[in-house]
Amino acid sequence: MPQGQPTVVPDDGLTTRQRRNRPLVLVHTGVGKGKSTAAFGLALRAWNQNWPVGVFQFVKSAKWRVGEERALRVLGDSGEGGTVAWHKMGEGWSWLQRSRQDAISSEEAAREGWEQVKRDLAAETYRLYVLDEFAYPLHWGWVDTEEVVSVLRDRPGTQHVVITGRNAPQGLLDFADLVTDMSKVKHPMDAGQKGQRGIEW
Amino acid sequence: MPQGQPTVVPDDGLTTRQRRNRPLVLVHTGVGKGKSTAAFGLALRAWNQNWPVGVFQFVKSAKWRVGEERALRVLGDSGEGGTVAWHKMGEGWSWLQRSRQDAISSEEAAREGWEQVKRDLAAETYRLYVLDEFAYPLHWGWVDTEEVVSVLRDRPGTQHVVITGRNAPQGLLDFADLVTDMSKVKHPMDAGQKGQRGIEW
Repeated sequence: MPQGQPTVVPDDGLTTRQRRNRPLVLVHTGVGKGKSTAAFGLALRAWNQNWPVGVFQFVKSAKWRVGEERALRVLGDSGEGGTVAWHKMGEGWSWLQRSRQDAISSEEAAREGWEQVKRDLAAETYRLYVLDEFAYPLHWGWVDTEEVVSVLRDRPGTQHVVITGRNAPQGLLDFADLVTDMSKVKHPMDAGQKGQRGIEW
Repeated sequence: MPQGQPTVVPDDGLTTRQRRNRPLVLVHTGVGKGKSTAAFGLALRAWNQNWPVGVFQFVKSAKWRVGEERALRVLGDSGEGGTVAWHKMGEGWSWLQRSRQDAISSEEAAREGWEQVKRDLAAETYRLYVLDEFAYPLHWGWVDTEEVVSVLRDRPGTQHVVITGRNAPQGLLDFADLVTDMSKVKHPMDAGQKGQRGIEW
């Protein structure tokens, strides 16, 4: 429960209001549970602010987010809060033709996803971007971290971006405004417990 | 992205199915961001499984969860997934009479909340319990950790419980099935950034 009281007042020439509405880059990394779950929890807040939310799932299998996806689709369609657009690499990015999908590798698919994020950032399509598991293609070098940082630094308007996944590259951590490391203290899988519905997906 | 592959198969006499549906106690602790957000993200998965979800906010001020509360209320009322019951200490527990609320301290209010959780666990009212910020009354000794562990250990049926908050007592961590420590690597408040809408609430 953050109390909203900064410990220092920065000498950055910004007014309190400007500082309050500063666009943020958030990173949830580490080997513990909760990186993506917390990002989708953040999407609830964005939805409540009537913000358009864009989710980009950078995972080959799309099976793990069925609960979050259904919930955010119902919310987006409820006519109460913001809109939600959900894009999945695992089932083929919706903006690519099916015939083109078949020909590309996971690496190319990840880059196609990032190209779309770049276009949306330039167009200010969303107010919150959830780049789920995007740390992996960065870690593997499929997408260039320096380019990502450069694009994020120069993005127009007030667009918040949350990036999840293990092994987020140091260059991204250095640039990000908020970094949380989810550490595993104890997980039932260590004791032979399999993942279960309602908990892992 | 958990792969669902346990590294050991436990010698506990349970079948895989029994082990798969084991009721879990999850704790999100640490000083970083994302403890509650991840718990509410988990509630999306429970909702998607058509489970009844009970949220108990053990905070005096209820202002910080407006986004999550509205989203979960819309979901619970959508007729699509499970139901959601939302109980707030900050505005007075709904099951207590207003005249009684006025007379009790925060400590008593926390204990009243726990008494209701006990009744609901005994009655198997919910399938997922979000005990938001419940680590605080435990840490402060307002609610007895040993009693909580004992009640959780003996709870009937398949009821999952997630407890959030800093300084979760060791006795709870020892008992819990899953513990994630959210560590702060970097937070904009350190640089004088105030909390902002859509991000902190």
